[in-house]
Amino acid sequence: MKRIALIGVTGVDWWVDPKKKSFVRAVTPPGFVIENLHARYGTHSVESHSDEAYNAPFILEQIVKANKEGMDAIVIDCACDPILEAAREISNIPVVGVRKAALHLALTLGTKFSVITVQGQSLVKCMEWGVRKEGLDGFCVGVRCLKMPVLDIAKKPEEAQRELMEECRQAVKQDGADVIVLGCTGLSHEIDLKPIIDEVGVPVIDPFVIAVKTAALLVDAGLSHSKVAYPFPPKKPIVEDPSIKGSFDKVLKD
Amino acid sequence: MKRIALIGVTGVDWWVDPKKKSFVRAVTPPGFVIENLHARYGTHSVESHSDEAYNAPFILEQIVKANKEGMDAIVIDCACDPILEAAREISNIPVVGVRKAALHLALTLGTKFSVITVQGQSLVKCMEWGVRKEGLDGFCVGVRCLKMPVLDIAKKPEEAQRELMEECRQAVKQDGADVIVLGCTGLSHEIDLKPIIDEVGVPVIDPFVIAVKTAALLVDAGLSHSKVAYPFPPKKPIVEDPSIKGSFDKVLKD
Amino acid sequence: MKRIALIGVTGVDWWVDPKKKSFVRAVTPPGFVIENLHARYGTHSVESHSDEAYNAPFILEQIVKANKEGMDAIVIDCACDPILEAAREISNIPVVGVRKAALHLALTLGTKFSVITVQGQSLVKCMEWGVRKEGLDGFCVGVRCLKMPVLDIAKKPEEAQRELMEECRQAVKQDGADVIVLGCTGLSHEIDLKPIIDEVGVPVIDPFVIAVKTAALLVDAGLSHSKVAYPFPPKKPIVEDPSIKGSFDKVLKD
Amino acid sequence: MKRIALIGVTGVDWWVDPKKKSFVRAVTPPGFVIENLHARYGTHSVESHSDEAYNAPFILEQIVKANKEGMDAIVIDCACDPILEAAREISNIPVVGVRKAALHLALTLGTKFSVITVQGQSLVKCMEWGVRKEGLDGFCVGVRCLKMPVLDIAKKPEEAQRELMEECRQAVKQDGADVIVLGCTGLSHEIDLKPIIDEVGVPVIDPFVIAVKTAALLVDAGLSHSKVAYPFPPKKPIVEDPSIKGSFDKVLKD
Amino acid sequence: MKRIALIGVTGVDWWVDPKKKSFVRAVTPPGFVIENLHARYGTHSVESHSDEAYNAPFILEQIVKANKEGMDAIVIDCACDPILEAAREISNIPVVGVRKAALHLALTLGTKFSVITVQGQSLVKCMEWGVRKEGLDGFCVGVRCLKMPVLDIAKKPEEAQRELMEECRQAVKQDGADVIVLGCTGLSHEIDLKPIIDEVGVPVIDPFVIAVKTAALLVDAGLSHSKVAYPFPPKKPIVEDPSIKGSFDKVLKD
Amino acid sequence: MKRIALIGVTGVDWWVDPKKKSFVRAVTPPGFVIENLHARYGTHSVESHSDEAYNAPFILEQIVKANKEGMDAIVIDCACDPILEAAREISNIPVVGVRKAALHLALTLGTKFSVITVQGQSLVKCMEWGVRKEGLDGFCVGVRCLKMPVLDIAKKPEEAQRELMEECRQAVKQDGADVIVLGCTGLSHEIDLKPIIDEVGVPVIDPFVIAVKTAALLVDAGLSHSKVAYPFPPKKPIVEDPSIKGSFDKVLKD
Repeated sequence: MKRIALIGVTGVDWWVDPKKKSFVRAVTPPGFVIENLHARYGTHSVESHSDEAYNAPFILEQIVKANKEGMDAIVIDCACDPILEAAREISNIPVVGVRKAALHLALTLGTKFSVITVQGQSLVKCMEWGVRKEGLDGFCVGVRCLKMPVLDIAKKPEEAQRELMEECRQAVKQDGADVIVLGCTGLSHEIDLKPIIDEVGVPVIDPFVIAVKTAALLVDAGLSHSKVAYPFPPKKPIVEDPSIKGSFDKVLKD
Repeated sequence: MKRIALIGVTGVDWWVDPKKKSFVRAVTPPGFVIENLHARYGTHSVESHSDEAYNAPFILEQIVKANKEGMDAIVIDCACDPILEAAREISNIPVVGVRKAALHLALTLGTKFSVITVQGQSLVKCMEWGVRKEGLDGFCVGVRCLKMPVLDIAKKPEEAQRELMEECRQAVKQDGADVIVLGCTGLSHEIDLKPIIDEVGVPVIDPFVIAVKTAALLVDAGLSHSKVAYPFPPKKPIVEDPSIKGSFDKVLKD
Repeated sequence: MKRIALIGVTGVDWWVDPKKKSFVRAVTPPGFVIENLHARYGTHSVESHSDEAYNAPFILEQIVKANKEGMDAIVIDCACDPILEAAREISNIPVVGVRKAALHLALTLGTKFSVITVQGQSLVKCMEWGVRKEGLDGFCVGVRCLKMPVLDIAKKPEEAQRELMEECRQAVKQDGADVIVLGCTGLSHEIDLKPIIDEVGVPVIDPFVIAVKTAALLVDAGLSHSKVAYPFPPKKPIVEDPSIKGSFDKVLKD
Repeated sequence: MKRIALIGVTGVDWWVDPKKKSFVRAVTPPGFVIENLHARYGTHSVESHSDEAYNAPFILEQIVKANKEGMDAIVIDCACDPILEAAREISNIPVVGVRKAALHLALTLGTKFSVITVQGQSLVKCMEWGVRKEGLDGFCVGVRCLKMPVLDIAKKPEEAQRELMEECRQAVKQDGADVIVLGCTGLSHEIDLKPIIDEVGVPVIDPFVIAVKTAALLVDAGLSHSKVAYPFPPKKPIVEDPSIKGSFDKVLKD
Repeated sequence: MKRIALIGVTGVDWWVDPKKKSFVRAVTPPGFVIENLHARYGTHSVESHSDEAYNAPFILEQIVKANKEGMDAIVIDCACDPILEAAREISNIPVVGVRKAALHLALTLGTKFSVITVQGQSLVKCMEWGVRKEGLDGFCVGVRCLKMPVLDIAKKPEEAQRELMEECRQAVKQDGADVIVLGCTGLSHEIDLKPIIDEVGVPVIDPFVIAVKTAALLVDAGLSHSKVAYPFPPKKPIVEDPSIKGSFDKVLKD
Repeated sequence: MKRIALIGVTGVDWWVDPKKKSFVRAVTPPGFVIENLHARYGTHSVESHSDEAYNAPFILEQIVKANKEGMDAIVIDCACDPILEAAREISNIPVVGVRKAALHLALTLGTKFSVITVQGQSLVKCMEWGVRKEGLDGFCVGVRCLKMPVLDIAKKPEEAQRELMEECRQAVKQDGADVIVLGCTGLSHEIDLKPIIDEVGVPVIDPFVIAVKTAALLVDAGLSHSKVAYPFPPKKPIVEDPSIKGSFDKVLKD
């Protein structure tokens, strides 16, 4: 049995949510098991660059842990791909970025994509930055968001479903998208994409599902991220935060 | 059991090669079976736009057949992605282009890719066109080729292995590639990528393997290519080539 | 007298239409004669990638024929530029792509172009693909289409004229185009562009006219397409379609 | 007989050169006559942005004159396309930029172009600017120059021929060009491109020839540059240079 | 005291305007004095490529003068950056282009910019050209203009203020700009940007202010424009315009 | 007196270095004072994405502090621009990214830039990512590095000077750069750029100097980063790291 580490990027363990748990189980690729790791400290959600910055070392700590525990691949469970580049530097095993995997898959299915995320101008801008950072500006016809913030989705899933349907429709009709990527992994286990895909007539990509399956694909194909693109970082002295003392010994710390 | 149609794009059935056959079996995703379809007429290999043009309707005929036979997904077995857009128009089930899938996966693993294909200036230019057609010019640091034409690989696999190693090395050292994509599916079952990846230190992507696994990923995720990007073609009268008469009834023919 | 081969890309001979014939005569460059070749098999119109794929070898057969008959240049009579790259590979004489020639001329006259074609989402997507394939995405502000399919234009030319006027107006007003390229050579002999150009105030380029005149320009200037960009294809065995048996001997067939 | 105004951009009349004169005659399109206008003041050659700036109003004066004299089209005789945008604003008849026309024609014949101009770092940078200004950076694999300055070509044409051959070879071999554009109209009547094209195997485009023929093509096709892209300039008071007093009355001067 | 030459690009001395004069004084960087030079001949305003072409040698004459007088830096006082490249070639001291400086500063403050200029389609197109020339097309979401021409601003400054507020609002709301650059230095001393910035919530960049301060920054940092990018032009004979006779001796004239 | 907060991004206070201190003083803009803040925890240097990730919340803490202390602007003292986007979200005052400011200034002085940083493949890749993230790929002709790691520069400044001279020379000669940006602020106070600029003939930009002066320029011009591009992050519960408890109250923490 191969093991995928699913790294929660917030200070809370969202896997206590039975819906999340059973969704994860449902999309686990055959021959794999998905294990739950999450940041020990951090904001309750990641909706801004500031959230990413606060949570950064605590996510990185889990990347180190997943490597030490002999996992086969890592998925960072957030459509902002927080600290993806750092994680890849420090990791011997493939690290999959949810957004990166989904954006490129989108371009194998259509020609012009929209991203639809949950409420928040910060999050919209994170997604726009993400698209530019990947060099995919020229393929993106827009980033849209629901009116609902991520922490409300579980409370009002039907409303989220309705809002998502509407934004998908607009993305196709008004923006000219022919493929859509969701911009939040908090939507995955609350939303039913099937009726939306049927209605709008374009693929709507759940980045969480794609990331998990891509991780398995990479392991099966014997591939990982490029260590020329993401070389191991030089080791050096660290003035250590007492809360994570020792976690980076022999990895980042000299 | 889900069924993937592997469409041979040449006028000969390459599956008679036991190496090819056993390689296909080895990379078949769990829960899937791969079935062999191939063009009834066509050139013995596809190494140029002219080969693609000659073989086009005969490949398309197999796409129609795969749909009629109730397959779950289609992989076009050629790194030139011949008639991929046409196949997607006419197909109700996902059609995976080997090159398209591999190029985008490459960009999830590294930042600058090279393509390495078999001998032939036509093939090099096909690959360059393919990269531009995908809008990925800005990420490509070069297209290289072996000195050996595709139809010789099976005869001299060790030499092919050596040549490939050398071109990969050059791609990384001279061109600055941090990820490599093979530009011919005829290499897949003759070459051992493991020692090359270990030596050059960057992922070397076998597009055949990736395409087959991506097909499974799409089926599992309930996704297909966008029918807004690749709409069904309008039906119309055809002055039919007697050799393929009737094959496009109710699909392309009115 | 220099000879331009005008290659019909459909299975029917559209030159029987006296309007087409006299239009061709009217735009024939001085010192040149235009000769009529067309695919022996094929769909009645080319409005999709599928039409292109069906007709591909039969168009290619005519390219070979035009070369054998000692023509001086070739124009492929379709704004989808079907099999242009293959035709250029196999040809010793310049092959002009209607769309390619028109898009680039547009960019010598204005800064942002729109394409306007006849009815059909497939055709719109073919044009969008064409623009991306040429690497000209960044200059294109939109692809629009008439409500009328290509096979109806001859029946209702005044309505086509009215619809075209309206779409041109929208392209300039709404999309910000400062130059327009027609996306169908079936419009050329049915439409009067003069009043449209006068009304909308931007050049509206008939790609058919431009292609024919560019062919003459190339011949006069002693230029042809690059044989480094479009090298002769390697010859090889072919499992021949009986309907076109022998046509590719010593060209593509070994 | 249609009339093309060939606008000399320097303060000297280069048409006194019988080689130039007979070359112009040789490439004059059928049905056209080419007439000689040139700036009354200006530098003896245009090899820098500074030369362009000095000569600007005196070139513009000739554009106004060509319009007043009822010409049918204008060609600015310099591969730097000096004041092309201004000329188009002020002109009712098509104005062809030598470089603009040649760069775009190049991209209809090949996929990656080099520019080769005469000696001078200023000129090389003018060409690089020109390529970027057209938005064609992504298609250009290099700008090269001869060791010989423009004013020496007429004195040593054989050496110029040899140098050009060598630079073309390097452009193809080292830079990967598959089409070449000359970057100086002073080369046109001194150089024989035929043996160079035969040797290097890619089209080598004489921008002067192409510009003149494109001017004829536009007139024949009833096309001109876009007046939305290049609108007439607002008229206004001018503190007039006594040397060109009155030349812009009712055109630029209120 | 370091000296910045502010080069007026029109045939009239706009510094007689006390508002302009006191504005210039207010924005003069500490340790610097700004001196007034202006073209001796030229149009009353620069709103088109034609205006730029007419005024070109007379602006260039002032660049030479500023160098001779031992200035420390030059600012060309026009958002069209007229003859910027020529000025840089001929100058030993840094030459700052108002538009170039402002566009790049904009991209350090936001991600997608709009340009807002004064009335006139020519001016809008000049700005669009400017953006493309800088290679910044992909960052620009639109060029807008007031309904008021530049020469009316001083007469109706409040109306200009209202119009500018409205266009800024539209740029943000409709076009998605997150930073705005003014496209006319004639606005600077008539407009109060503070309330507009407060209202629309994005930086609105006065290019005049930025250019002057950038000039000081460069002098202080010991930097100038690249002489590899803008090499000194080769000297040569000139058929001199009597009105500027001698001005280019030993600079451009041999 | 206006105050610029210079934020040290490592866990050590580099300002104890008298060379650094006196350099900072020397480049302080008139009317400004620069104050020293630095991360309380973190790696000793920032040479990788991993270093950035470790240090992220501790840098962010200083951004909050600088805001609370009533500073006028912030400069993040590292050419990797660590957490720049987060800092801008959370800050009411302008935050200047050293790299972002320098790259864009480079493009106002030349046309094609190289980045030269200190030793380390991680750092080279950080810089390449940074260039792509800014959307400036098309202007960058290469990223080079010294053979010396950042922490050695102070020990062997003459060797660093020699190495930098050599890399600058290569960047211009081999890569075609016409402007160079240093990719490490640790070089600023150890290197004398004047002789290098004189030797290689292109501007070599010290990003530290430019960032500090740009901060002053923004304050003087009343500008800041766009709050539409970098909106305030939504507040929310945080599982706080005890080491930074309370630091984000009412800023990021609900």
